[in-house]
Amino acid sequence: MALRGDKVTLAHGGGGRAMRDLIEEVFTSVFEPESMEDQARLMSGALTEPGARLALTTDSFVVDPVEFPGGDIGKIAICGTVNDLAVGGATPLWLSAAFIIEEGTEIALLKRIVATMKVEAEKAGVKIVTGDTKVVGRGSADKVFVTTTGVGVIPPGRDLRAEAVQPGDVAIVNGVLGDHGAAILAARGDMALSTDIQSDCAGLGHLMAAVAAACPGLRCARDATRGGLASALNEIAESADVAVEIEETALPLRTEVKGMCEILGLDPLYLANEGTLVLFVPEEEAEAALAAMRSVPEGQGAVVIGRAKPKGQGPLVTMRTLFGGARIVDMLVGEQLPRIC
Amino acid sequence: MALRGDKVTLAHGGGGRAMRDLIEEVFTSVFEPESMEDQARLMSGALTEPGARLALTTDSFVVDPVEFPGGDIGKIAICGTVNDLAVGGATPLWLSAAFIIEEGTEIALLKRIVATMKVEAEKAGVKIVTGDTKVVGRGSADKVFVTTTGVGVIPPGRDLRAEAVQPGDVAIVNGVLGDHGAAILAARGDMALSTDIQSDCAGLGHLMAAVAAACPGLRCARDATRGGLASALNEIAESADVAVEIEETALPLRTEVKGMCEILGLDPLYLANEGTLVLFVPEEEAEAALAAMRSVPEGQGAVVIGRAKPKGQGPLVTMRTLFGGARIVDMLVGEQLPRIC
Repeated sequence: MALRGDKVTLAHGGGGRAMRDLIEEVFTSVFEPESMEDQARLMSGALTEPGARLALTTDSFVVDPVEFPGGDIGKIAICGTVNDLAVGGATPLWLSAAFIIEEGTEIALLKRIVATMKVEAEKAGVKIVTGDTKVVGRGSADKVFVTTTGVGVIPPGRDLRAEAVQPGDVAIVNGVLGDHGAAILAARGDMALSTDIQSDCAGLGHLMAAVAAACPGLRCARDATRGGLASALNEIAESADVAVEIEETALPLRTEVKGMCEILGLDPLYLANEGTLVLFVPEEEAEAALAAMRSVPEGQGAVVIGRAKPKGQGPLVTMRTLFGGARIVDMLVGEQLPRIC
Repeated sequence: MALRGDKVTLAHGGGGRAMRDLIEEVFTSVFEPESMEDQARLMSGALTEPGARLALTTDSFVVDPVEFPGGDIGKIAICGTVNDLAVGGATPLWLSAAFIIEEGTEIALLKRIVATMKVEAEKAGVKIVTGDTKVVGRGSADKVFVTTTGVGVIPPGRDLRAEAVQPGDVAIVNGVLGDHGAAILAARGDMALSTDIQSDCAGLGHLMAAVAAACPGLRCARDATRGGLASALNEIAESADVAVEIEETALPLRTEVKGMCEILGLDPLYLANEGTLVLFVPEEEAEAALAAMRSVPEGQGAVVIGRAKPKGQGPLVTMRTLFGGARIVDMLVGEQLPRIC
């Protein structure tokens, strides 16, 4: 049955025929789940391998605006969850997607978001196997929130943990920093800035698979989303009980992002990323890691940005600046740009 | 570090130190996940049994008010997801929980919700292994939305499907209908009704385990949440290509719920439930199913309400009324009481 009207109404969330029409026309016709039961039933040979572990991760996405240069909330919802699985060493397999939709949201917008999700899931090699939709009254949510939960399998013997990082290990990022945060900021329009910056939003599953294959000693990886690179490095340093020193001159930053940060007084180390990871490898595997990363599109810009050192009395993370000084890189303390992911 | 202030601020969602303090004080100190990585890593012997399947289900909860007689949004979030796993024949094992929190929400409220979740998870024998929090600006969400995703294991050989229902099969419910919908309606206060009705919200994992053990021929089960019993029966009938006839006199309804429905012109068949399931068993196993259900607290009120018949030209679901007539029981068409789950 075709949906009547072009906006979501409260009846679309009621559990009856209108809801079923919305779900069929907008969601299941695209995601094509194997059954319409309320649960997906899944089987994979990878799961039954002795020593394999299941990985489970979840994220709610509340980005404003929901469409921005380089992506939309659906793209971040898929990539973000795929990346949380991948940086933990898991092969992403299955995703669930739950939508909270504000009454009055355009059905055409939902269809665009769902189409993006389908494309990104295929790119990442994952399947969206189950979902949920709720509708809330006008003003009780902001257009649409998406919560994705990912299930993957960690192969036997792989154990990536921040605690494993040791002094001497090398820190590598896969490409430019801050594009997502900068793109969202510009898209929001409050700043009257006109830029061509696109979100870096990308799935990093293939990249992680390449590095893990090339670097048996890979310690850990983190995607530098909310809180940016600075917060990811601080979390790793704290867990591993080491210090980390990065080089300002080594940080890959687009001129436009740098310029925007200078104008607005922002620090690119705290800008959110949606396709950027930082990983630590033993020094002797750094070259192999860089080569493996550069062999996939998402790792073209891979560079060493610093290294782990023994922990002293001082700050956990420091940056050697352009002029040879040292600057403390603390965790983000106050408020980030809100609603960035 | 102790949280400053008693309300959630945007900084609590920023990815930095304030967020970490909120997560530690409110969430992980209660849920006690095994690691602070962004993914849980899980292992279970049940998973590696040949022929076992993984079950995955997700639900967003947006109930208003978030606290109501008989429960709160945290209780529904755990029970609802446990029940989606259980009615599909899976043993519930692990849950993720993602919170979207409105700026200004009281931290004490969050703590109460999290405490309920912990209690319900323990009752159901599941572990909350990973989660996420996002904070949105005032007016961009309604206090707190919770999305839970559940992972369970379906034992080898178990295959509950609505399609399996055959003419002659018996329909059983585990207890009274409509308590959740009625309790929420009264709690919202719009109706100036004063009642003692409590939500029926309960985890049904142990009940399903008991029935599945006693009834090898169990066809399918559904929890009758949004859209009520009427919508659940219509979905099953449509999938199975059968008709279903229920008996009005057999429906278990509390006098208070019946009275409230009469006053307000509501039909209890469409009221939401959060601890009520309907299941279909072969006639020869009906007695065994009833006995098994009555052996656990959530199934004390188990009764036969009707049976499946060959599909004719007429409506899918009908009800024989008190006075011997027949009434069509259609799917919910318009709007249910909004924000009931």
